[in-house]
Amino acid sequence: MRLRHKPWAKEKLNSFPQYFISEPENNKGKWRELFQNDYPIHIEVGTGKGKFVTGMAKANPFINYIGIELYESVAVTALDRLIEAELPNLKLLSVDARNLCDFFAEGEIDRVYLNFSDPWPKSRHAKRRLTHEGFLRIYEEILVNEGEIHFKTDNQKLFEYSLQSFSAYGLRLNYVSLDLHKSDFEGNIMTEYEEKFSSIGQRIYRSEVRYLRKR
Amino acid sequence: MRLRHKPWAKEKLNSFPQYFISEPENNKGKWRELFQNDYPIHIEVGTGKGKFVTGMAKANPFINYIGIELYESVAVTALDRLIEAELPNLKLLSVDARNLCDFFAEGEIDRVYLNFSDPWPKSRHAKRRLTHEGFLRIYEEILVNEGEIHFKTDNQKLFEYSLQSFSAYGLRLNYVSLDLHKSDFEGNIMTEYEEKFSSIGQRIYRSEVRYLRKR
Ligand SMILES: C[S@@+](CC[C@H](N)C(=O)[O-])C[C@H]1O[C@@H](n2cnc3c(N)ncnc32)[C@H](O)[C@@H]1O
Ligand SMILES: C[S@@+](CC[C@H](N)C(=O)[O-])C[C@H]1O[C@@H](n2cnc3c(N)ncnc32)[C@H](O)[C@@H]1O
Repeated sequence: MRLRHKPWAKEKLNSFPQYFISEPENNKGKWRELFQNDYPIHIEVGTGKGKFVTGMAKANPFINYIGIELYESVAVTALDRLIEAELPNLKLLSVDARNLCDFFAEGEIDRVYLNFSDPWPKSRHAKRRLTHEGFLRIYEEILVNEGEIHFKTDNQKLFEYSLQSFSAYGLRLNYVSLDLHKSDFEGNIMTEYEEKFSSIGQRIYRSEVRYLRKR
Repeated sequence: MRLRHKPWAKEKLNSFPQYFISEPENNKGKWRELFQNDYPIHIEVGTGKGKFVTGMAKANPFINYIGIELYESVAVTALDRLIEAELPNLKLLSVDARNLCDFFAEGEIDRVYLNFSDPWPKSRHAKRRLTHEGFLRIYEEILVNEGEIHFKTDNQKLFEYSLQSFSAYGLRLNYVSLDLHKSDFEGNIMTEYEEKFSSIGQRIYRSEVRYLRKR
């Protein structure tokens, strides 16, 4: 993700408090109050410019979505989409996934989406991959019993790494496609990166894994 | 595998008792006596014409190999290779993998190789796939504690199915490559099917899975 410096991003995000939650630690354990319903909550970690999460929120009005993007300068583009689409079931945060446990209570989240996460190809950077054991532990904490991670990427090495990381953590592989766009998977919503990479002929990999029942 | 009727195959196989074991039920629990050493025993299920298993036996003199091929008319080609190579650490059987427990005692085998197994694409034939739960139970029975299955195929759907089947069975994915010939995996020995399919540009998929410690 190429970053452009946007000094006005923070101010813009903060002027849409119905969409952008600037102090999410205040909502810990209370997200369903904020959404004013009891629908499941799905989060996307590393939302980028928000094409996927706004598409999902449009398509699934009875699910609440939270898009989480580290950089305000990127999240602000997701905000633009959300302002345009006026979706009551989508909120945006600009926080680091490392700190998710500060923002969500145990078992508060029903599903985690990871799309085209940064691959961090060097093995000394493996800990930064969003499918590293350290992150799997964080997701487990905030997910319901038997919660799921749905993961897409075009990056073969990251996908191989992630399948092994999921397995080592004891996650169950419920779905895998090694060429999503040639599969019979229905209702796929493309992300920005997915459009870019599939248009130049890259295969898209996709998996769904589930945590086992908690001890 | 296109089958040619070879009425002389059985007779030829039986005339090389040092290589072809015609009544393997007599060796159940006694394979190390036959090999006259205590080296690990690796079996290949669906050996075909034997290129892989003879190559492995040549490369690894301190491992015993058993190649298992359903059809005598196919096994006889593997026998020709073995006669040529004169390997003391390789035996051939012509039996159905369904009956492996009749030929091997509990924990007698250290590793199972599956290479380019028939894909049986129709879901009503899923039970015939050599990575179906039914076969995973058979391999578990004859394998040592924490025994492994090493699996290669060019067939994307079979590989996807197998990863899910392994996971559902509780097997740990220790290695996965989604493009073996472009990976840094060393010492790969090609099978007949692998040569054929990779020469026409097909990707080769490879995985290693391990059974968890027995209860
Ligand atoms: C390669 S982009 C993919 C964006 C989008 N998911 C897509 O598929 O088009 C990865 C995004 O994840 C964000 N990201 C990376 N690490 C993160 C973290 N620890 N917490 C939150 N977001 C993160 C990056 O800022 C970047 O926008
Ligand atoms: C597609 S061929 C692959 C041969 C070889 N492994 C290769 O990679 O070139 C599959 C082989 O498995 C054998 N086979 C299939 N089902 C089997 C079973 N239940 N028991 C033993 N062999 C079997 C077939 O006869 C065939 O020779």
